[in-house]
Amino acid sequence: MPPSDKAYVPFVSVDHMMQIVHRVGLPQMLRGIAGAIEADFQRWEQFDKTPRVASHSAEGVIELMPTSDGAVYGFKYVNGHPGNTRDGLQTVTAFGLLADVGTGYPVLLSEMTLLTALRTAAMSAVAAKYLAPQGATTMAMIGNGAQAEFQSLAMQAILGITEVRLYDIDAAATAKCAANLAGTGLTVTACTSAEEAIEGAQILTTCTADKQYATILTDNMVGAGVHINAIGGDCPGKTELAAEILHRADIFVEYPEQTRIEGEIQQLPADHPVTELWQVIAGRTPGRRNDRQITLFDSVGFAIEDFSALRFLRDKARDTGLFLPLDLLADPDDPRDLYGMLMRAAPAASAA
Amino acid sequence: MPPSDKAYVPFVSVDHMMQIVHRVGLPQMLRGIAGAIEADFQRWEQFDKTPRVASHSAEGVIELMPTSDGAVYGFKYVNGHPGNTRDGLQTVTAFGLLADVGTGYPVLLSEMTLLTALRTAAMSAVAAKYLAPQGATTMAMIGNGAQAEFQSLAMQAILGITEVRLYDIDAAATAKCAANLAGTGLTVTACTSAEEAIEGAQILTTCTADKQYATILTDNMVGAGVHINAIGGDCPGKTELAAEILHRADIFVEYPEQTRIEGEIQQLPADHPVTELWQVIAGRTPGRRNDRQITLFDSVGFAIEDFSALRFLRDKARDTGLFLPLDLLADPDDPRDLYGMLMRAAPAASAA
Repeated sequence: MPPSDKAYVPFVSVDHMMQIVHRVGLPQMLRGIAGAIEADFQRWEQFDKTPRVASHSAEGVIELMPTSDGAVYGFKYVNGHPGNTRDGLQTVTAFGLLADVGTGYPVLLSEMTLLTALRTAAMSAVAAKYLAPQGATTMAMIGNGAQAEFQSLAMQAILGITEVRLYDIDAAATAKCAANLAGTGLTVTACTSAEEAIEGAQILTTCTADKQYATILTDNMVGAGVHINAIGGDCPGKTELAAEILHRADIFVEYPEQTRIEGEIQQLPADHPVTELWQVIAGRTPGRRNDRQITLFDSVGFAIEDFSALRFLRDKARDTGLFLPLDLLADPDDPRDLYGMLMRAAPAASAA
Repeated sequence: MPPSDKAYVPFVSVDHMMQIVHRVGLPQMLRGIAGAIEADFQRWEQFDKTPRVASHSAEGVIELMPTSDGAVYGFKYVNGHPGNTRDGLQTVTAFGLLADVGTGYPVLLSEMTLLTALRTAAMSAVAAKYLAPQGATTMAMIGNGAQAEFQSLAMQAILGITEVRLYDIDAAATAKCAANLAGTGLTVTACTSAEEAIEGAQILTTCTADKQYATILTDNMVGAGVHINAIGGDCPGKTELAAEILHRADIFVEYPEQTRIEGEIQQLPADHPVTELWQVIAGRTPGRRNDRQITLFDSVGFAIEDFSALRFLRDKARDTGLFLPLDLLADPDDPRDLYGMLMRAAPAASAA
């Protein structure tokens, strides 16, 4: 006898996710996730919030990122292992889940390596929408790894930028990124230094993967009126910006309790003022105040963004039918009779 | 092009789990998991330990339970919703994962509703092995829900008990449990009160599901020389024993930081002495000292027990081939080219 409907959890595999992106369209996916993030940031106070639960090792980190809005619960499993690429593995892989708060039953399980790339890019573009100078056309993209194309395309889809200037210490990464972005409508310039990349850019995005204090941007590289989107500094001991830049910038963060541990601001005293981005999105506090201001989105990634992305995905999986029903939950006819279910599943006895 | 081997995570469905139990044999599964728990409790100090991360609601709780021994990381998702049985759903469902600490890549995803029932029963029997009076033959099983048969069979398989005395406020639950245990070799007595159930029993097991302070055992019901196995008191506000019993008993716990929040001892001052069970299993401190002592295992379930069960399961899944390779991880040929992988997965363009 097959399991009942209650046993099955819709599962979005990597292949399903790629098919969903192609069915919906990548710019539409990025805009949709951005819209879900904005909607959830506007109701930020409804969410259970906690710093992610991290398990650190010499090689990297494994994290669980839970949240709940009181009706739906979500969490993501995500790792960060900068040495993985040496062995042909991803630096970051992830999967996630939504569950019904009322019953505790999972309602969606999904790959989130791709979805995290999409939501991280969508989040950056949402922040830039509120913080970047009006009419920004050009982004410097420093660090041309797995995130670079998604960051560029989200800024195009959501903010309307027209040019990206690429730099990576590994020229092959820049070449890969430039080739991928050909034909997207973006003007792409491959640069041979970070200094060259930031020329004329109103948005500076850093996304490098070293698990150590690094200085991707030095103080003298950052002029007035730019918006910095610092993505790579996202765990203790891992930062990308010179501390002097932080002192000149107005700093916007997702969840201060987490960012002070993991973000660029781990370089600053614990009482250094920061603004919670949700307050800007909800209209409670201004974002950019003038065209000389340096704004910094010190992004580390927060559970609510994954929740938003999974919410959006759930609808798209339902609409497209692109998921596999997974036999994840034991569902006996009588809930108290788990043992009876197990016994009735015994293979027929062989002949004596 | 199909994904590479790196994309696939072995997945043990509910059906696989039931097949594995029948292939291995239920008593052998219980003994195997008990052995894995004992081995891991002996090396307790090697593990990262943290109280589980709980998200409470009016209806129940959703928890994440992570741990790591430095080489392997594991976590479990588990809910507890006492009202679920009204709607034909399980009170507790769960799934879990093992991952390689060195790369962060998952190596096993599994249903854990059944596996949690097995490990909870195995854990109880391991505790009783060290704490119950020598030559215990009889267990009172109060609360005859989904755990009851597993508790009874684990005490039989690991401790050699020969009789169980059942009681539940719902006589239908007792009848279900008694019917399931017929033919297992246990002498089964269905009782009409808790007082009757504990007559002649050396081991008193309580496993009820109300999310509220309850008094399943009152002070006068508990005589000298018994071992109490209190399973149902496992979240804030949910206890099963009269506080007077706790003052007469020597109390053994898994992880005090978690048990003081969730266990029977939430009724006691925060400095009430307790013994960590791992210290007994590792031979660092005595378990039962004499035949008049009341021992209490204030069980709430700890992440290391799930880790042990998943470790054991991983070997059995490998041995039996009873798993499904799940396309959970994005695995581009070039790890930095996630975008390229996505683009190459585009469906062929239709004719213009």
